[in-house]
Amino acid sequence: MNIRDGKFKKLLAGCGTQAVLITDPLNMRYLSGFRGGEGMVYISGKRLVLITDSRYTEAAGKETADSFPGSDAWPDGFAVIEESRSHKRYEILAELLSEDGAERAAFEDLSMTCADFRKMQEALPMVNEWVPAGDQADRLRRIKTPEEIELLAKAESIGDAAFADMLNIIRPGLTELEVAAELEYSMKKHGAEGFSFESIVASGLNSSMPHAIPGMKKIENGDFVTMDFGCLYGGYCSDMTRTIVVGKADEKQKEIYSIVLEAQLAGLEAVRAGVTGESCDRAARSIIEKAGYGKCFGHGLGHSVGLYIHEEPRLAPGAETILEAGMLETVEPGIYVPGFGGVRIEDMVVVTEDGCRNLTHSPKELIEL
Amino acid sequence: MNIRDGKFKKLLAGCGTQAVLITDPLNMRYLSGFRGGEGMVYISGKRLVLITDSRYTEAAGKETADSFPGSDAWPDGFAVIEESRSHKRYEILAELLSEDGAERAAFEDLSMTCADFRKMQEALPMVNEWVPAGDQADRLRRIKTPEEIELLAKAESIGDAAFADMLNIIRPGLTELEVAAELEYSMKKHGAEGFSFESIVASGLNSSMPHAIPGMKKIENGDFVTMDFGCLYGGYCSDMTRTIVVGKADEKQKEIYSIVLEAQLAGLEAVRAGVTGESCDRAARSIIEKAGYGKCFGHGLGHSVGLYIHEEPRLAPGAETILEAGMLETVEPGIYVPGFGGVRIEDMVVVTEDGCRNLTHSPKELIEL
Repeated sequence: MNIRDGKFKKLLAGCGTQAVLITDPLNMRYLSGFRGGEGMVYISGKRLVLITDSRYTEAAGKETADSFPGSDAWPDGFAVIEESRSHKRYEILAELLSEDGAERAAFEDLSMTCADFRKMQEALPMVNEWVPAGDQADRLRRIKTPEEIELLAKAESIGDAAFADMLNIIRPGLTELEVAAELEYSMKKHGAEGFSFESIVASGLNSSMPHAIPGMKKIENGDFVTMDFGCLYGGYCSDMTRTIVVGKADEKQKEIYSIVLEAQLAGLEAVRAGVTGESCDRAARSIIEKAGYGKCFGHGLGHSVGLYIHEEPRLAPGAETILEAGMLETVEPGIYVPGFGGVRIEDMVVVTEDGCRNLTHSPKELIEL
Repeated sequence: MNIRDGKFKKLLAGCGTQAVLITDPLNMRYLSGFRGGEGMVYISGKRLVLITDSRYTEAAGKETADSFPGSDAWPDGFAVIEESRSHKRYEILAELLSEDGAERAAFEDLSMTCADFRKMQEALPMVNEWVPAGDQADRLRRIKTPEEIELLAKAESIGDAAFADMLNIIRPGLTELEVAAELEYSMKKHGAEGFSFESIVASGLNSSMPHAIPGMKKIENGDFVTMDFGCLYGGYCSDMTRTIVVGKADEKQKEIYSIVLEAQLAGLEAVRAGVTGESCDRAARSIIEKAGYGKCFGHGLGHSVGLYIHEEPRLAPGAETILEAGMLETVEPGIYVPGFGGVRIEDMVVVTEDGCRNLTHSPKELIEL
């Protein structure tokens, strides 16, 4: 059976409805191959439809056909229907729901806004019951196929190549923004089709802010420089963080760095199929706590990655989901000392039966530039 | 009166509630100065609060103080409260709502998801009535202050500089992705802090897709190359499109280009305070229709721009909002011929009492590289 065919069946069964409307752009992409993001995917036992507008219909036809040429259950694959002022989205949906006799339909309550839901409900009176799909579609994305892992590994290798370039570029006097520009240019040159989030380049005191926005601050001798960045390849995200010192590290910098590194290695050691995200977090966090920096590590150890940069399940306090082989996770402890600076080290790994496969290959010993 | 002070009052009055919760990241930024995007802004007659987590609290304290140091009505400006596992967001909100005796509260139904709303409703039983705020907060952002216009003009000038660079860079053999990388690198070097959307570089047949995603296709001699791109400066978006020909344009390319240019100039001519967005659209569209290409212009003439790339009001069929001085609009007609190629020309303008001020200064006559 075609793997996506199985996913459509799982989705309909999971929602327990005759039709499922998919509106989250990444779920649309995952299920239909459509990359434009604007529109709606309609799934019923009888048909697969992508509704979008004239800006995207030509591309959508190609993308859906490439992604899902048809299967036993849905021999025609996706039909692309163009919405327009004379044939509005909800008119098209009303026709589909009526033809399929779908009185129960599922919608993506995790992403659909209250305002859109009210509009939809009013426009589609033939639906007696709207069932919140919750994370049914997102869950399909948790365990990656070998093809997806290949794209994620390629994306992360672009990050590795860019980090290597940065070691030749970073020098005192460059601003954080210039470093970010160089980093992103390097990722694009190595094949990135975009970025999975806004690159973080935080230097000196700014490095104590885990999600600092790069600014006009110049890199100075003695600064920690934390770079947290990722790119897109084939639609999939990479994510990595390295912290370096420009010039010679002082004793406190060395101390903090070595604690974070020890915690990161312990986190990696803990990741495997069959354990909870919480237990991985604990393995890393306990090292930071024992060193007296527990209050300086305010975020979770990691998160899953895929078409989106932050996916479930997470590695964090309270994260009870059991990890399974084929899941992706970041492992990224940090220590942030306001008024001093901070360190974060992050790899991206694939969970395996007996451990994990690290997709990040950049060095982790303290680099003094 | 401080200009933002007036906005808070307008917002509370517009919603008709004792408290307003702002969850849209750009509205949060607009009202509080907070750039992190994750959290919630609470506004009541008694206090202004930003709730966010430990990743952002240090930055949030600086940003809110810089943006709104306090006023007659809210002398303390913003209080930043840190949410955590031991003091969750809804616990904090419950305390604030109870202290303020707010039984009616407004929420952002245009951006809040159905799932989040249900969670919030259950967690905050002291609120008797949840009032959908609709676009009350977004509307505050429509008319830009001189300071905002300065940032938008600066952002657009970075686009102009990058376009000028591209005329020296584009040549047959480069892929669309390489051209996009160069374009973005150039914007960053000229001061962009990020991009307002994913740059579009579409060449040859791909240019017939208005929202084509740049790919591995190489630029060839005789190709139309459409570049639609924008950057962020001070949080504000730029947006511009130019289409050039690599090599010599043929007769059909020249014909299509000149029709689009004529339509674009007519659109610019039509923009002024006191007219509807529809009338501007019509001015441009009628030229394309008369030339026989009406079906090849499937999108609206333009949209407003600000902290977000696509804001209201639009210039489009059915757009009845009356334009006011200080609004920003793009003017971007296009003709897209499947199997041949397409042209779009886009400027970004500020509406004035008697016309508009064009923020885009790149040349518009047909460029043959």
